[in-house]
Amino acid sequence: MKITVLKNVMCKNNAVGEDNRQQFKDHKILTLNLLSSPGAGKTTLLEKTLQLLHKKYKTAVIEGDLYTSRDAERLARFDIPLIQINTEGGCHLDARMIATAMEGLPLNSLDVLFIENVGNLVCPSSFDLGESKRVLLYSVTEGEDKPSKYATMFQAADLVLINKTDLARACGIDLQVMKQEITKINPRAKIYTLCAKDELTLSSWISWIEENLNEIKSR
Amino acid sequence: MKITVLKNVMCKNNAVGEDNRQQFKDHKILTLNLLSSPGAGKTTLLEKTLQLLHKKYKTAVIEGDLYTSRDAERLARFDIPLIQINTEGGCHLDARMIATAMEGLPLNSLDVLFIENVGNLVCPSSFDLGESKRVLLYSVTEGEDKPSKYATMFQAADLVLINKTDLARACGIDLQVMKQEITKINPRAKIYTLCAKDELTLSSWISWIEENLNEIKSR
Repeated sequence: MKITVLKNVMCKNNAVGEDNRQQFKDHKILTLNLLSSPGAGKTTLLEKTLQLLHKKYKTAVIEGDLYTSRDAERLARFDIPLIQINTEGGCHLDARMIATAMEGLPLNSLDVLFIENVGNLVCPSSFDLGESKRVLLYSVTEGEDKPSKYATMFQAADLVLINKTDLARACGIDLQVMKQEITKINPRAKIYTLCAKDELTLSSWISWIEENLNEIKSR
Repeated sequence: MKITVLKNVMCKNNAVGEDNRQQFKDHKILTLNLLSSPGAGKTTLLEKTLQLLHKKYKTAVIEGDLYTSRDAERLARFDIPLIQINTEGGCHLDARMIATAMEGLPLNSLDVLFIENVGNLVCPSSFDLGESKRVLLYSVTEGEDKPSKYATMFQAADLVLINKTDLARACGIDLQVMKQEITKINPRAKIYTLCAKDELTLSSWISWIEENLNEIKSR
């Protein structure tokens, strides 16, 4: 019975997710669902990414957190549309939360919408938000064994960003092994390495965003 | 309706959790529920802790993972009772899983049972397993802001172990600030700093285990 209830919840979520996706398509918006463990660097990546993109493109952010608006406050200086969702203990964002947030966004004029999901390597993987792509941030400090241990999350990623490469040596991490572990679980995922706090390492990530945005705009 | 269902699930879980707790009490077993984000160092801590304790006390481990038995394999060399639970994508251990695992453990002769929960800073906090104490491992690499952002988890902890202190400087972390952030959210939690891979830093943690075990045995 528990499973039936869960299936119903998921069906409803996915239906709303598809509605969201259609709206994003109609408005030619690239929507990126950013996923990771707590503290893997999503907000830092967003800060640096917005710094590089917010003048060139119309960007917006939906910030998901259990409690507090700390992350949203860190992004406030960009003066872009920014919507905070507090899940009040809930472990993931769902499509309905995004649908509600979309009502407060200028969809007609947006290019890129970043959704920062709740820091959790399990539950958010099961909830389609209607995003264009799923971006998984994976910190070297978490160790090389996470792709097979959190397979559902890694299988659902379009792009995996290996973050905090400056700590790889101190953590005894071999980046090649880390990439192989990801590819074993998800051969179709793109993988880039970066250090989110250092803008100079973000060029592949930024190019990937621009390529995907161009593809959407040219449809 | 979703909330009602969830409440029923929780009520049933907590009833089984209380049964487990009574059994652990009857057998004078110290049961520690180890919680953290993915990759915060639970298995490394267990390896080093067992190395120090497994000859002096009768220990056992219940290993929780979504998939794989990688962590259990790392602990196999200690030749102690070790039960793997794979949640097959599930985001937490629940009391019933522990009750089933207990059937395979020599409860009459155990002193300390370690339960390594699924790496997740959200969901496991809501599920009482019947443990004596909750131990939360918090890696400096996750940043100082996690206690208020993941308040339910930090509020439920009896002991917080700040791990990977060797990386504090590289991560720009002030350990005093980190401790203050924990105390703000949970003033009753004990806090120790350590570096799980270095046995020399584990003395407070080991003493804490022995004190709690002595208290249980003297009841």
